[in-house]
Amino acid sequence: MTTDIFDLYESNVRSYCRSFNAVFNKAKNAVIYSEEGRDYIDFFAGAGALNYGHNNDFIKEKILSYFNSDGIMHGLDMYTVAKRDFINKFNESILKPRGLDYKIQFCGATGTNAVEAALKLARKIKRRAGIFSFMGGFHGMTLGSLAATGNIQNRLGAGVQLPNVTFMPYPYKFMKSFDTIDYIDNVLNDANSGIEKPAAIIFETIQCEGGINIASTDWIRRLSDLCKRNDILLICDDIQAGCGRTGTFFSFDRAEIVPDIVLLSKSISGYGFPMSLLLMKREHDIWQPGEHNGTFRGNQLAFIGAQRALEYWEEFNLQKDVQEKSDFIKNYLTNEILTLHNLLDVRGIGMVWGIDFSDVGGAEISKQIARRCFEFGLIIERVGRNDTVLKIMPPLTIEMELLQTGCRIIKQAIIDVFKENGLNV
Amino acid sequence: MTTDIFDLYESNVRSYCRSFNAVFNKAKNAVIYSEEGRDYIDFFAGAGALNYGHNNDFIKEKILSYFNSDGIMHGLDMYTVAKRDFINKFNESILKPRGLDYKIQFCGATGTNAVEAALKLARKIKRRAGIFSFMGGFHGMTLGSLAATGNIQNRLGAGVQLPNVTFMPYPYKFMKSFDTIDYIDNVLNDANSGIEKPAAIIFETIQCEGGINIASTDWIRRLSDLCKRNDILLICDDIQAGCGRTGTFFSFDRAEIVPDIVLLSKSISGYGFPMSLLLMKREHDIWQPGEHNGTFRGNQLAFIGAQRALEYWEEFNLQKDVQEKSDFIKNYLTNEILTLHNLLDVRGIGMVWGIDFSDVGGAEISKQIARRCFEFGLIIERVGRNDTVLKIMPPLTIEMELLQTGCRIIKQAIIDVFKENGLNV
Amino acid sequence: MTTDIFDLYESNVRSYCRSFNAVFNKAKNAVIYSEEGRDYIDFFAGAGALNYGHNNDFIKEKILSYFNSDGIMHGLDMYTVAKRDFINKFNESILKPRGLDYKIQFCGATGTNAVEAALKLARKIKRRAGIFSFMGGFHGMTLGSLAATGNIQNRLGAGVQLPNVTFMPYPYKFMKSFDTIDYIDNVLNDANSGIEKPAAIIFETIQCEGGINIASTDWIRRLSDLCKRNDILLICDDIQAGCGRTGTFFSFDRAEIVPDIVLLSKSISGYGFPMSLLLMKREHDIWQPGEHNGTFRGNQLAFIGAQRALEYWEEFNLQKDVQEKSDFIKNYLTNEILTLHNLLDVRGIGMVWGIDFSDVGGAEISKQIARRCFEFGLIIERVGRNDTVLKIMPPLTIEMELLQTGCRIIKQAIIDVFKENGLNV
Amino acid sequence: MTTDIFDLYESNVRSYCRSFNAVFNKAKNAVIYSEEGRDYIDFFAGAGALNYGHNNDFIKEKILSYFNSDGIMHGLDMYTVAKRDFINKFNESILKPRGLDYKIQFCGATGTNAVEAALKLARKIKRRAGIFSFMGGFHGMTLGSLAATGNIQNRLGAGVQLPNVTFMPYPYKFMKSFDTIDYIDNVLNDANSGIEKPAAIIFETIQCEGGINIASTDWIRRLSDLCKRNDILLICDDIQAGCGRTGTFFSFDRAEIVPDIVLLSKSISGYGFPMSLLLMKREHDIWQPGEHNGTFRGNQLAFIGAQRALEYWEEFNLQKDVQEKSDFIKNYLTNEILTLHNLLDVRGIGMVWGIDFSDVGGAEISKQIARRCFEFGLIIERVGRNDTVLKIMPPLTIEMELLQTGCRIIKQAIIDVFKENGLNV
Repeated sequence: MTTDIFDLYESNVRSYCRSFNAVFNKAKNAVIYSEEGRDYIDFFAGAGALNYGHNNDFIKEKILSYFNSDGIMHGLDMYTVAKRDFINKFNESILKPRGLDYKIQFCGATGTNAVEAALKLARKIKRRAGIFSFMGGFHGMTLGSLAATGNIQNRLGAGVQLPNVTFMPYPYKFMKSFDTIDYIDNVLNDANSGIEKPAAIIFETIQCEGGINIASTDWIRRLSDLCKRNDILLICDDIQAGCGRTGTFFSFDRAEIVPDIVLLSKSISGYGFPMSLLLMKREHDIWQPGEHNGTFRGNQLAFIGAQRALEYWEEFNLQKDVQEKSDFIKNYLTNEILTLHNLLDVRGIGMVWGIDFSDVGGAEISKQIARRCFEFGLIIERVGRNDTVLKIMPPLTIEMELLQTGCRIIKQAIIDVFKENGLNV
Repeated sequence: MTTDIFDLYESNVRSYCRSFNAVFNKAKNAVIYSEEGRDYIDFFAGAGALNYGHNNDFIKEKILSYFNSDGIMHGLDMYTVAKRDFINKFNESILKPRGLDYKIQFCGATGTNAVEAALKLARKIKRRAGIFSFMGGFHGMTLGSLAATGNIQNRLGAGVQLPNVTFMPYPYKFMKSFDTIDYIDNVLNDANSGIEKPAAIIFETIQCEGGINIASTDWIRRLSDLCKRNDILLICDDIQAGCGRTGTFFSFDRAEIVPDIVLLSKSISGYGFPMSLLLMKREHDIWQPGEHNGTFRGNQLAFIGAQRALEYWEEFNLQKDVQEKSDFIKNYLTNEILTLHNLLDVRGIGMVWGIDFSDVGGAEISKQIARRCFEFGLIIERVGRNDTVLKIMPPLTIEMELLQTGCRIIKQAIIDVFKENGLNV
Repeated sequence: MTTDIFDLYESNVRSYCRSFNAVFNKAKNAVIYSEEGRDYIDFFAGAGALNYGHNNDFIKEKILSYFNSDGIMHGLDMYTVAKRDFINKFNESILKPRGLDYKIQFCGATGTNAVEAALKLARKIKRRAGIFSFMGGFHGMTLGSLAATGNIQNRLGAGVQLPNVTFMPYPYKFMKSFDTIDYIDNVLNDANSGIEKPAAIIFETIQCEGGINIASTDWIRRLSDLCKRNDILLICDDIQAGCGRTGTFFSFDRAEIVPDIVLLSKSISGYGFPMSLLLMKREHDIWQPGEHNGTFRGNQLAFIGAQRALEYWEEFNLQKDVQEKSDFIKNYLTNEILTLHNLLDVRGIGMVWGIDFSDVGGAEISKQIARRCFEFGLIIERVGRNDTVLKIMPPLTIEMELLQTGCRIIKQAIIDVFKENGLNV
Repeated sequence: MTTDIFDLYESNVRSYCRSFNAVFNKAKNAVIYSEEGRDYIDFFAGAGALNYGHNNDFIKEKILSYFNSDGIMHGLDMYTVAKRDFINKFNESILKPRGLDYKIQFCGATGTNAVEAALKLARKIKRRAGIFSFMGGFHGMTLGSLAATGNIQNRLGAGVQLPNVTFMPYPYKFMKSFDTIDYIDNVLNDANSGIEKPAAIIFETIQCEGGINIASTDWIRRLSDLCKRNDILLICDDIQAGCGRTGTFFSFDRAEIVPDIVLLSKSISGYGFPMSLLLMKREHDIWQPGEHNGTFRGNQLAFIGAQRALEYWEEFNLQKDVQEKSDFIKNYLTNEILTLHNLLDVRGIGMVWGIDFSDVGGAEISKQIARRCFEFGLIIERVGRNDTVLKIMPPLTIEMELLQTGCRIIKQAIIDVFKENGLNV
C-alpha cells in the first residue's frame, strides 16, 4: 500500500483516510476493496450517500447506456431529457402519492449548497434575516450553512463571526428536562427576548452528526404547528436522514407534516454522484431566474441515477426490506450490545443507529472500538458530541448476512476494548 | 418539444433554459443536440466547464473502463487509487514543470466550495477576518463566496449582510484613470483608512463574469508584490480562466507569479463532472483534519476524467492548438466585428473573448444578438455589467470550421440586429 | 402652557413629554413644578437619576461654591482636584468597606457609554467576541449596548443586525419552570451547541425596564459561580438599580458577589448631571491610554456632586431611611393594592416596586392608570413587556408623607380605572 | 502635586493627563490653573468643547441664576422652560437666518450618541444598512460611531467586527491624485462594484482628528450634489468644526449646502457641559416616540448655557473676532513657522490650524514639541495619522495677547526641538 503520495501532496485536511487507512479501488454493494485485496464491510455508506450500495447494477446499467449514447453530461440549468425524466419520476413516485405540491430547485452539487439556497429563499420570502437552528444540528461547511451548524470546531474554522442564526434547544439530555417547543414559543412571543422572529427554522428529524438524537413524532408535529402559528417557514434538512434511511422516503413521513422546504442530497442520485435539490411549496417559489446559480447545478449523470434509483426503490420493495433489517439491528443492539454495560445507550430508527459511549469511557473508548472494527474488516464512523457515538449506517441494500457479521464485529470489538481498558463487560 | 414539466415543477430560479429554449439530449465536442434533432454550435462550453468538449472520446474510454471494473464511485476523502493517480499526474504534468510546490485540497464538488475553503484557510493562516476582492469579481453564490462577489443582484439574494470583504477597484473603465495598486497600498498603509489589513486578496486575472476585463501582466505582478510587501495572501480564482482557457494551464502563467492559493474547478475533470480543488503553498497547509469537509469532496469519476484530461492536454498538444484558434478569434473580431461600429469594443486572451455593446445599445442590443445567434444555431452567453458583453468561449477542442461558422453567425446576428434597431453598420 | 414650540421644532422622538404633558420649570426633592404653578409628586425620579431628589440642598451648596470659584468645568481626562476628591471619597466610603479592589474608568457622560466600554473591555480581556445578555435586559441605545438590550422595538430602531450577543433566559414567568443557570451551563459545555463561550455575561440584579423582575440571591450567586467556573467575566449593570436604590449602595450587595465589572451612572452624580463610570477588578485594567475616549468623560461638576452625595448618604443615614420607606411600600402594595384584584402582581425590593397588570387588562389598563395618576398630580412610569407594569421609584429622599400620598393616588387611580373598564375591584 | 491617587485607582485608559501632567483646579477663558498655582495657556479648548472659553462670565451669570431658583436639573425629554427657551433662541439666531427648516433631536449627552442617532435615523429613512464614511474620519467610540471612524487602533478596541460602513477616499495626499467624487459616483453606479447604495454619507468638512484635512468648498458642494443625485442622505458631523470654530456657526456655511442631518455637540452648551443634538430636515423626522432614548438626553443646565452662548455670539460679535484671530494665526504660521523648514506644512481655517511634521521627523518630533510647549506653559494637542500634526485650537474668545504668546511658544519649541534633533532650522 502506497500512501506516500497523499502524505506528500494532499492537504492535512483529509480526514476519513486517517481512520480507514487503506487505499481503496473497487466496491460492490456493502463491500469495499482495498488495492491490496482486502475487503471491508461498509457500515458507513459514504456518510449516507450510498443507501443503494456501491455500484448498484440496476442503476449502473442505465448510466452506462447514457454514457454510450453520448448523452449530454453537463448542461447547467438548461433543459435536458435526463432532467425531465427525473422530475417526472420523482413527482409520480414520491410527491404525488403523498399529495405534496412541491416545486424542485436543482442546486450546486453539494448538500451545503442546498442549505445555502434554502436559507436565502427563506430570508427572501419572509424578509427577515434570522434563522433558528438547533443545538447539535449539522447543515454544512460553507459560510451560510456553517452558521446553522452547531459544532464549535467547525464554526471556528470559519475565522469570522457567523451571524443571523440563533440556536434553540433540541430535545436531548438536559434539554429534555423542560418543554423545548414551549421555550421557543416563549422566546418568539416575548417582545423583550432580544431574539427577533426568524424567517425559518431549519431542523433534522434525527440529528445524525449530532449523535443519533431522535425527535419524537409529537415534537416534530408541535414544531410544525409552532411555525405555522408564528408565520415562520419550516425547513427539513433531510440530506442524511432522507432517501429511505429511516424506513420511509422522507424521514418526516412518520410525523405526517409538510415542511415548507425540504433538502435532499447524498443518496438521491442512487450512485454516490454529487447532486442536491430543494423542494419548496409552490407558493414559495419566488426566485428570480439565476438568483442562486452555480456551474454544477444539474448533474446529468446524477439525474439518470436518481431516476433509476426511484425505480429500484419500488421494484425491489426496499421499504419492506429496510423494516426487516431495522428490526434485526434493534434487536441485536438491545439484546447483545445494551446488555454489555449498564451505562451504554443505543438509539435509532430505520437503518441508522447509534451506540453511545459518552458515559462508558467516552471518546477514547469509542475511538478504540471503531479502530478495532476496522482491523476486523468493518468500516464504521463515530459521531456526536466528542465523537462518542458509534454510528451504524450500512447501505439499505446490505445483505442480511453481512449485516449480521458487521454487528458481531462491533460486539467483539466492544468486548475486547472494554476488557483492555478494565471496564466490566 | 415538451417543456411543460419544467414550467410546472422546476423552480423559477432556472435560468439558462430561458435563453436556450430547447430540450437537449446529446452532445459531442462543440455541438449540442436537442431532442428534436437540431444541433447547436457551443460557444458557451458549460460556462467554462467543457474546455475539452462534450464527451471527449479520449477521456470517455477511461471512464467507461472504470465503471466497468466497479471502481469505487464515492469515497469522501478516503484514499483511493483514482485519487492517487490524479495527484501523481497533476504533480508531474502541471506543478513540477513550473517548480510549484503546492499541496492539494479536494473540496466539495463546486467551485464556490473551493472559494469558501480558500477564504477560511486564509483567515486561519493570518488570523484576520478581512478579505479584499475586486469590483466586478465573481466567486460564487454561497454566503462566504458571495461576500466576495460584486454583482449587486446576486448579493441581494443573500437576504443578509455580507461582511468581512472590502472591494477594491479593478483596472476597468474609470478605475483605469488612476493607479489602482497604489490606491490599495495607500489604503493598507494609512492607519486611519478604516480598512484593516486583510488576510488575503482574491482576484481573477480575467474577470469573465465581470465582462472580460483583463488585468495586464504588469498589474498582476504588482498585485503579487503588494501582497508580499504587506504580508497578505494572494488567492487566484482560476476556476473559469484556468485549465488552459487562456492558452496556458494557469491563467497567471503569463505573469510568472506564484499565488499563495489557487482555485480550480469547472474544466478540471475534463468531462463536466463536479469537482473542485484548492492548491496551497506547502507552508500554508495548516488545516486540521476534517476542518473543511463535505460528502462530495473527492468525486472519483472526476479524478479519472481529470487525470485523462491532463494526458489529452499533452498528447494532443492542446496549448499550440489554442494559440492558433486564439489568433483566429482575435483577427476575426478585430477585422470583421470591431469594424462594424466605432463604439464597439472587443477584448480577450486565449480562447475567451468579449464583444462589448455597452456603448452601442447596451443590454437590449446584446440580448437581441444572443437570441438571434441561438436562432442561427449558436449557443452564446452574455456577461458583464448589465449583460452587455457577448462572451465567446467555445471548447478549446472545437473544430476550426465550427469556430469559423460560429464567428460568422455572430457577425450576421450583429448586422441584423443593428439594422433592425437603426444603428449604423 | 405653550408647547407649540416643541411640536414645531422638537423631533417626534420625544417621549416622556407625551405622558407628562406639562412644561416644567422648577423642582425640589420629590416635587416637580410646572410653569403654570402646578406641583407633581415624583415617583419617577428621572428614570433613576434622582435618588437624592431634585436640587438637594446639601449637594447644591458644594456645587455653587465650585461654580463661584471658577473651578474647571471641562477637562476631559486630565487630572483635576474635583476628580481626585471624588475618587478618594468613593474609595473610602464605598469600595474599602466592602473590600473591593476596583479601578475606576470615567466614561462618556451616559450610561450606554459605560456599557459600551464594558463590552469592549471584556472582549479585549478574553479575546472573544460574544456576550451573553438576558431576555428582558436593558442596557442602552448605542449600537453595542443595544445589541445587549432585549426590547425588539428598540432593536429594530438600529436598522442593522446586532450581532455578537446571545440572549439567555432570565428567571421570569415560563423561564422559571426550569433551571436557567443549568441551561446556561449546558449551552456552554456542549461542544455542538452552536454558541461559543462569551467574553462576559452582562446582567441586572433587577430588570427594571424589563418589568421589575428580581433575581433571587441564590440565582445571582450561582450565576457568579458559573462565570468563574467557565472563565467568563461577570458584568453587573447597576446603572438603574445601584446607588442605593435597593437599600444598599450596590444592588448586588445582597448576594455578596464581586462582579468583574460594575457599571454606574444615573444617580451617581447626586444631582442628575450626566456621568457614568465603570469599576473593574484591578487585574482587568488592560486598557491602552485613550483606547476608549470621548469629550465628556469626566464631568467636573458631576464629580463635585458625586462626592457630596456620598457624604449625604452617610450623614443622613440614607440606608436606614430607605429600609423604612421600603417597608411602607411593601406593606401598602400588599395590603392595599394586591387585594384589589386576584390577578394583580406586585414585586419589588428597596425602593423600586412594580404593580403588574399583565393579567388584568394589560397595557391599556396600565396606560389609563398612569394617565389618571398624572391627572391626580403624580408622575409615574410604566415598564415591562408591553408597558404593563407600573413602576414605583420615587427619590430615596422623598418625605414619608408624599410617599403615602403618592401611593394613595395610585390606589384611587386603579379603582377608578378598573371600575370604568368593568373590572371587579 | 499628588497624582498617586490616579495611578492607584483610575484606569490606565486615562490619556490626556499623561501629556499634561498637572492637577488642575481652576480655569478662566483661555487659561487653566494647576493646584500648584501654575497657569497654562489653552490651545486645546477641551478638544473643541470650550469655544467660549472657560467659565465665561456672561454665560455663568445665567447658570447661577438657574441654580439659585432650583430650576429643574434633570428631566429626560419632558417639556421644560429651559429647553423651550433654547429651541426658540437656536431657531431665531441660527436656523431662520439661514432659511433652514430643521427639527431638533436632543441626544444622550455625548457627541457619539448623536452620531449613533443619525446613523439609526438614516438607516430607518432609507431602509438601507450601509453608510459611507471617509478615510481619516472620526465620529466616536461607541460601536455604531466607531464603525464610521477610520483610526485602526480605535477600531481594534471594539473587539468585534464593525460592519455596515464603507470607507471612501477623502481628498488627502495620494487620494488627491484622482477625482474622489467621481470615484464614489462610479462605485455607486456600477452594478458589480460589490458595494450597495448606502443610506447616508457621513462627513466632516474638516477632518480635525484626521490631521486638519480641509475639504474644498467645491468638493463639499459636489458631495452634496452626488448625494441628491443618488438618493443618499448627507450627514455633516459638525461636532468639532461647528459652533463657530471655522468662522461661521456651521462649518458648512462656506459651501452653502444644506445637509440632511447635522450633528452638534462639544461647544454647543457654551460652558463645557455634556450635550449633543441632531438637526434633521423636517421630512426626515420619522422617529417613533422613544425610539432613540437615554437618561441624559436633555441636560437642562446645558440648555441654559447654550441659549446664553448664542446671545454671547451675537452681542460680542464673535464672528468678526474669529476672523481677526484667524488672520493672525494664518500669518504667523505662514511667516514664522512655515519658513522654519521646507518640509513643514501648515493648514487651517478659522481658528483651527495644524502644523504637519509628517515629513519632518514625524511623531517623535511632534511629541517632543508638544511636550516642550507644555513645559513653556502651553496646552496643545497632536492629531492626524500617527499624531504628527500639532493642532492649534484655542477658545475663540482667547485674548489676542495670549494667542500671540501661545504662537511664540510653539515657534520656540519647534526651534529648540529641531536643533536638539539635528534638523536644520
